[in-house]
Amino acid sequence: MNKDIRLQEPENKKILSSFLGLNQKKHKKNQKEKINDMSKNISLTKKYIYHFGPEFTEGSLEEKKLLGNKGSNLAEMSRLGLQVPPGFTLTTEFCNVFLQKKQKLNECDKKSIKQAIEHLEKVTNKKFNDKKNPLLLSVRSGATISMPGMMDTILNLGLNEHTVKALSELCNDERFAWDNYRRFIQMYSSVVMKMNSSLLEVYLEDYKNQKNYFSDSEISAEEWKQIVYQFKESILQNTGQLFPEDSWEQLWTAISAVFKSWNNPRAVTYRKMNGENSSDGTAVNIQSMVFGNRGNNSATGVVFTRNPSTGEKSLFGEFLQNAQGEDIVAGTRTPFLIVNTKQNDKKDLKTLMPSMFKELKELCAKLERHYKFVQDIEFTIEQNKLWLLQTRNAKCNIQAQLKILFDLYKEGVITEEDILQKIEPNSLNNLLLPSIDSKDGNTVLAKGLPASPGGAIGKVVFSAEKAVEYNKKSLPVILVRAETSPEDINGMIHSEGILTLRGGMTSHAAVVARSMGRPCVVGCESADIDEVKKELFFKSQLIKEGDEITLDGSTGEILLGAVKMKAPYLDENFFKLMNLSDKYSKLQVRANAETPTDVKKAKEFGAKGLGLCRTEHMFFESDRINIIRKMILSESSEERQTFLNQLFVMQERDFYDILKIMSPYPITVRLLDPPLHEFLPHNLKDIEKLAETLEIDKNKLIFKIKSLSESNPMLGHRGCRLAITFPEIYLMQVKALSSAMAKILKEGKKIQIEVMIPLVCESKEFEILKKLVHKEIQKSEEDFKIKLPITIGAMIELPRACLLADELAKHADFFSFGTNDLSQTVFGFSRDDTGKFLSSYLHENILDQDPFSKIDVKGVGELMKIAITKARAVKKDIKIGLCGEQGGDPDSLSFFHILGLDYVSCSPYRIPIAKLAIAQCNLKNKRN
Amino acid sequence: MNKDIRLQEPENKKILSSFLGLNQKKHKKNQKEKINDMSKNISLTKKYIYHFGPEFTEGSLEEKKLLGNKGSNLAEMSRLGLQVPPGFTLTTEFCNVFLQKKQKLNECDKKSIKQAIEHLEKVTNKKFNDKKNPLLLSVRSGATISMPGMMDTILNLGLNEHTVKALSELCNDERFAWDNYRRFIQMYSSVVMKMNSSLLEVYLEDYKNQKNYFSDSEISAEEWKQIVYQFKESILQNTGQLFPEDSWEQLWTAISAVFKSWNNPRAVTYRKMNGENSSDGTAVNIQSMVFGNRGNNSATGVVFTRNPSTGEKSLFGEFLQNAQGEDIVAGTRTPFLIVNTKQNDKKDLKTLMPSMFKELKELCAKLERHYKFVQDIEFTIEQNKLWLLQTRNAKCNIQAQLKILFDLYKEGVITEEDILQKIEPNSLNNLLLPSIDSKDGNTVLAKGLPASPGGAIGKVVFSAEKAVEYNKKSLPVILVRAETSPEDINGMIHSEGILTLRGGMTSHAAVVARSMGRPCVVGCESADIDEVKKELFFKSQLIKEGDEITLDGSTGEILLGAVKMKAPYLDENFFKLMNLSDKYSKLQVRANAETPTDVKKAKEFGAKGLGLCRTEHMFFESDRINIIRKMILSESSEERQTFLNQLFVMQERDFYDILKIMSPYPITVRLLDPPLHEFLPHNLKDIEKLAETLEIDKNKLIFKIKSLSESNPMLGHRGCRLAITFPEIYLMQVKALSSAMAKILKEGKKIQIEVMIPLVCESKEFEILKKLVHKEIQKSEEDFKIKLPITIGAMIELPRACLLADELAKHADFFSFGTNDLSQTVFGFSRDDTGKFLSSYLHENILDQDPFSKIDVKGVGELMKIAITKARAVKKDIKIGLCGEQGGDPDSLSFFHILGLDYVSCSPYRIPIAKLAIAQCNLKNKRN
Repeated sequence: MNKDIRLQEPENKKILSSFLGLNQKKHKKNQKEKINDMSKNISLTKKYIYHFGPEFTEGSLEEKKLLGNKGSNLAEMSRLGLQVPPGFTLTTEFCNVFLQKKQKLNECDKKSIKQAIEHLEKVTNKKFNDKKNPLLLSVRSGATISMPGMMDTILNLGLNEHTVKALSELCNDERFAWDNYRRFIQMYSSVVMKMNSSLLEVYLEDYKNQKNYFSDSEISAEEWKQIVYQFKESILQNTGQLFPEDSWEQLWTAISAVFKSWNNPRAVTYRKMNGENSSDGTAVNIQSMVFGNRGNNSATGVVFTRNPSTGEKSLFGEFLQNAQGEDIVAGTRTPFLIVNTKQNDKKDLKTLMPSMFKELKELCAKLERHYKFVQDIEFTIEQNKLWLLQTRNAKCNIQAQLKILFDLYKEGVITEEDILQKIEPNSLNNLLLPSIDSKDGNTVLAKGLPASPGGAIGKVVFSAEKAVEYNKKSLPVILVRAETSPEDINGMIHSEGILTLRGGMTSHAAVVARSMGRPCVVGCESADIDEVKKELFFKSQLIKEGDEITLDGSTGEILLGAVKMKAPYLDENFFKLMNLSDKYSKLQVRANAETPTDVKKAKEFGAKGLGLCRTEHMFFESDRINIIRKMILSESSEERQTFLNQLFVMQERDFYDILKIMSPYPITVRLLDPPLHEFLPHNLKDIEKLAETLEIDKNKLIFKIKSLSESNPMLGHRGCRLAITFPEIYLMQVKALSSAMAKILKEGKKIQIEVMIPLVCESKEFEILKKLVHKEIQKSEEDFKIKLPITIGAMIELPRACLLADELAKHADFFSFGTNDLSQTVFGFSRDDTGKFLSSYLHENILDQDPFSKIDVKGVGELMKIAITKARAVKKDIKIGLCGEQGGDPDSLSFFHILGLDYVSCSPYRIPIAKLAIAQCNLKNKRN
Repeated sequence: MNKDIRLQEPENKKILSSFLGLNQKKHKKNQKEKINDMSKNISLTKKYIYHFGPEFTEGSLEEKKLLGNKGSNLAEMSRLGLQVPPGFTLTTEFCNVFLQKKQKLNECDKKSIKQAIEHLEKVTNKKFNDKKNPLLLSVRSGATISMPGMMDTILNLGLNEHTVKALSELCNDERFAWDNYRRFIQMYSSVVMKMNSSLLEVYLEDYKNQKNYFSDSEISAEEWKQIVYQFKESILQNTGQLFPEDSWEQLWTAISAVFKSWNNPRAVTYRKMNGENSSDGTAVNIQSMVFGNRGNNSATGVVFTRNPSTGEKSLFGEFLQNAQGEDIVAGTRTPFLIVNTKQNDKKDLKTLMPSMFKELKELCAKLERHYKFVQDIEFTIEQNKLWLLQTRNAKCNIQAQLKILFDLYKEGVITEEDILQKIEPNSLNNLLLPSIDSKDGNTVLAKGLPASPGGAIGKVVFSAEKAVEYNKKSLPVILVRAETSPEDINGMIHSEGILTLRGGMTSHAAVVARSMGRPCVVGCESADIDEVKKELFFKSQLIKEGDEITLDGSTGEILLGAVKMKAPYLDENFFKLMNLSDKYSKLQVRANAETPTDVKKAKEFGAKGLGLCRTEHMFFESDRINIIRKMILSESSEERQTFLNQLFVMQERDFYDILKIMSPYPITVRLLDPPLHEFLPHNLKDIEKLAETLEIDKNKLIFKIKSLSESNPMLGHRGCRLAITFPEIYLMQVKALSSAMAKILKEGKKIQIEVMIPLVCESKEFEILKKLVHKEIQKSEEDFKIKLPITIGAMIELPRACLLADELAKHADFFSFGTNDLSQTVFGFSRDDTGKFLSSYLHENILDQDPFSKIDVKGVGELMKIAITKARAVKKDIKIGLCGEQGGDPDSLSFFHILGLDYVSCSPYRIPIAKLAIAQCNLKNKRN
């Protein structure tokens, strides 16, 4: 393809129209020559319009960034020779220019689009705005990322008083024509004229009620005409504007509105939630209409090439006869299945339209092989002709996704590497979440469709606002809606689970919930809602706002109260994936953990050691906190030693347990880090209670706490600074560790220990403490008569440590970046205080991301680079790891991979994610 | 000279002794050849022994680092052909090896020293440890830096039961010989055997009292013999050791003790106070004795080539006939003057020993010309022969120093550049200190010698410990002592001024006080002290510990209570020096100031603008604090605007005043920086009071304060973060500034404004705020119909700002490093909290310096370098300044000079220091 063709300049007009109608393959050479000629005379701008369709296709899947997901897939399908209604795509770059600069189409834009329409007229043999054979269009958004239902779509564009008559005559179906017209008016008025869409819906509903009509199909052509005039009247009254009769006017305004819908609030929220870049823009796809509503030999539907909920290999989806696409997505009519396995109710595509089903099945197989993944396909059948309107990789729950990928691998469709690359690492999170264990004793209130698996417990709320409000108070909620719409997105984010009364497995709620990994039950039609009274009625039970229920997203059951949850069950595919990840990884993954439970969990999830064992966490446990307090408050060194000895016994036991579990993998033990005042209470009530418990004078205690308190504890007397002024605690910790290690070794087990000194800012500081620690280890070696293979390293968490990494590397056996604290000092952000301004920074796009979740490559990352370069210049093979929050974030990991770290350490639940992300980095690297 | 001769190895012994006695000049070539031969056969170590004296001298002033101050000066004087008693220097490197490795002399060392002694025996024609013509030695410390009285000295070494008799016979003066012996015993026992020296002194004092002797000279030879035996007896009893009779034994132990004295506590304290490196070590000078105590044609004295107190060109000093050096320095006998200008009491060197005076005067002139500075010379006259024992640059007060340097320049001895280089920048501090204004109404208690100028007010204390104790409570003290000794050094540091009852202008107290710039009065013999009762008796008044007195170090007066002080008087020489500094400077110096008083002062001291005008300081004044509080507590934006309008009026007036004073120089205005909670009270009492004053509900106020409070305010919601969430304050400030500037410009004055955005961490943040500020300036430009030349820059005080300096430089008109905050985040030190550990870090030499006083070159400096390189790569000529505390520190300035900053900004009182330091950097650079 010639991607360099640049259009849009008026000067190009003639040249463009001269080859638009031509077969691309034949005239490739000609085109190139002409372009070369052009480039000599005029300044070219970027190519903004890409055609697709059976006859002429310019884009492909490779232009996804430029054409959006939908546009590039339409081009790709065209290229595969599949039946796609012809059309063209306005690129995301066009969108960006539109949004940034002008916010409306200029004459030059319009001319270019008109030329594209002319081409469309040629290939369809219809004419836009024509009174005889009118070309009707769909205008759809299509961003690079999939944002289901987030942005706007208009169908049947081009209809007006004249063209509707032409359509009617052409199809010999007046009812069909006017039904299309009223659909267009509803969509256009809502999207472009910002008319409250429910006003027209209510009118229609009232009309049907008056007439005792059960469905739209009972409305006659004449009635639709009346309704259309009523709609137009209502639009004039409510918006003060006449509904436009000029088809071109309709087109220009529709394109502008769809571009602008990129920045509508629900789309912005969706992108924020998904961490997507808000400067990408959306493409717009303008496509000739095909009609699923031209009688019972027409239909529209959605099909998944495999079951996205279970991974089962069978077509899965829904369709409606004599309907247009939005009838399905909106979930207002309950559709038929593509394949119905139930014996009793055998209405499905296979039975109703067998030849169409056969064609569809073949197409599905072809697309799946081509895209190497389960596809989510939109199709329309117009008078027994099958058209494909969209295909995309299906959103599945992670269990299903794993099954499908390993199945496709077995089928020879994909490779091992494909498996690794096709899984979004964060989606593994859902695998590790708890599910419902036992429902014994809990009433099953009702059953809906199991739209997104997992168990969720929460208090019932009936609006997105309430969900947010409860969430702020840390109350988990279940959002219950008749059906969800994109406006509910924020409420869904803040819910544990979602329940809708209407809609099918491909309804808005179902799609979004699956993509978020939220348990979801849809189509629970046996229940009813009173939104005013805030009540939810089940057959046996009335539920009010705030009442607790449980959703089982895997079965579709709704249960009263909170049921027993169980730890996640990790199936065979999970472990296969982990093994596969290890096979393709260099960077090791360890865990941040210190309780035996967490350490066990970490090992189960595949951790190859502990990268951060925070010794002070052990001090906070209820049986120890008062001992460490007494130690801090000691007035003589003898007294202090007594309490240190008590702590020694406890800590040695803790270390023994942890070492035993993690053997033979290495364990990085960080010595005491927080300032001592963190162990003491700070409000008067707690202080009084402690004074009583410890039998000490209250005022003395207050004085001691005051003398320890600091203005900025984060930058205060903590970390290794404590050990410089007060070495006894470190000595106790090292002794406990050495002693535990000696015991483990004597039991014949293998273990490696890395003692990590926190908050180092200067090499002399590290030297002194290394000597101190080393001496204590030697003592234990003599006592236990055994060699203890302990290395001593520095936690690199201050800018100065990075800048002096060469000096530190001379003395340190290893480095471990503490990116939490490093981010705090590099930004000058106290994590505890960012609440006051960080959200503004993210909202105003000053920062793209929370630097405490994703590594800040430009600042923190730059310092890490400096440190690594300096350290390796002095000690080529120094082991360098990382133990900040960002160690479990896939984006950050791809940076850490480039940095050449030896290991990262993250919380146990992030380990599978990290392992997969790292394998992906390696594969990406291999390719580049 | 051949500096490469390496001795010390036993193999060198013969070669060494073969040429030690030879005339160096004649045999230079021979030596070289021999050395070359040697180097073929043996491995050479460093040369550790350097000879000096009229006949053979190896070192010179250039070897100061190796030979110490005294040793290199002795070599230099020998080289000039002056009469210096021959001897040799053990180098500082020898000291370091001694201290680090062995702490005692090995056989190899001893052999080398014995060879050097053999040489000394040849040139003096005496023999060490000889029973007929014994060679006696002085053993003196001599570090590279001058540390008056800080380390140990032993005279008359070599005396024992045998040699004392030989000396007695040789000099035909038994009394002389035994007096020397008892002096040796006193010094040796104290220095080497760690005998409490006061025990022997008290014995001697008691003896004289019993005998009713007024001075030592009344003690006969026979009596001295008895005293010597009593001394030895007392030493045995108190130390358990016999006083050594073997002269060699005496020598080895003396050398070791002097080396070790490098690390005695008072020397360590002194070096710490002066920021000197503690790893330099001291040289040891071993010199043949000359005797100032061989009768009245002998004398010992100290002479300054000019008056170190006034700078007047006339010999200034003191001497004692028939005495040894320590008699003067100790201040126990009041000596005669070298030149006495008073008519009535004409006992001076000129009248008592006229030919010696003439010779001394010529020597003084010669040395001053050679050293290009006023000299502080120790001399001894032995039976009408003048010997020079030491010369060094005299310590003068800064006024005197300036006068002397400009005089020497006029005399053609030195150049302009010499003037700039010979002044320690920090010494200018003393010029800027207040002095006594009026003594009206204050009783003059007594008058002593004006040893160090300036006025000091404080509470009387009688010990160093008390001085420190009072100082901790921030109570200024005057340290009063009968006479000071090096043990008092720490007390002197913590005093405003020093008063001693005994000692002359060159006594310990006088010398040290002058070097510290502390006002000092010495020799106030009319007063008396009862150290036990802690009382100070003047003729008319009893002063107790804690009573307040004033010292006038310029007149010697002691006054009751606190007298009125006046601002420093800056004489002509000061301004000459400033002009000279400007002539040799590139880096501009500005001031950190915001009150009209400070801004005026800054301009007077030579500031070329303001580099940091902290707008929030204006808010803290009593008439404003409640307005800003009301603004913070406002509940509606209208209410808030009311208070902002009030603040606007005040701030506009402030800016107007400041701009008017500083015109035409540039002013950098930093917009609001501290977090809002800093403006609110934090303890309950103040909160209650404020609630009452502002007539608001106490609980509401408490709630508001709580909601604003932060865990780590240093890393919190402050600086430009406030402006992102709450832009109104910045807008008000910029409006006030623009308005004030417009008025000044309309008055026909020139002014440049630089608006500085604090705490920037990201370029988008800066972009947004620059736009905001710029818009407000434009508004004012329209309102006042005048162009406002305001630039907008970023304060670089976070690591991330340094690392992203290229991005920031694209938008910022200028940068200013805020090294205070930058040091906090680079080290992870909260300045408010370092008290808990920084002293330990300095004490244990983990850090060489307080990074908040001197720039940390390795860490903070490295980041600055990165920032400057990145910024200049994008915007070559971007103006880059600095406004941290370190901007007034000479050491830091030499680094900033290398960095290529455009300006530094410091507190007004540091400006002269900074200017001089910068000129010195430039000269240094020019030379290199």
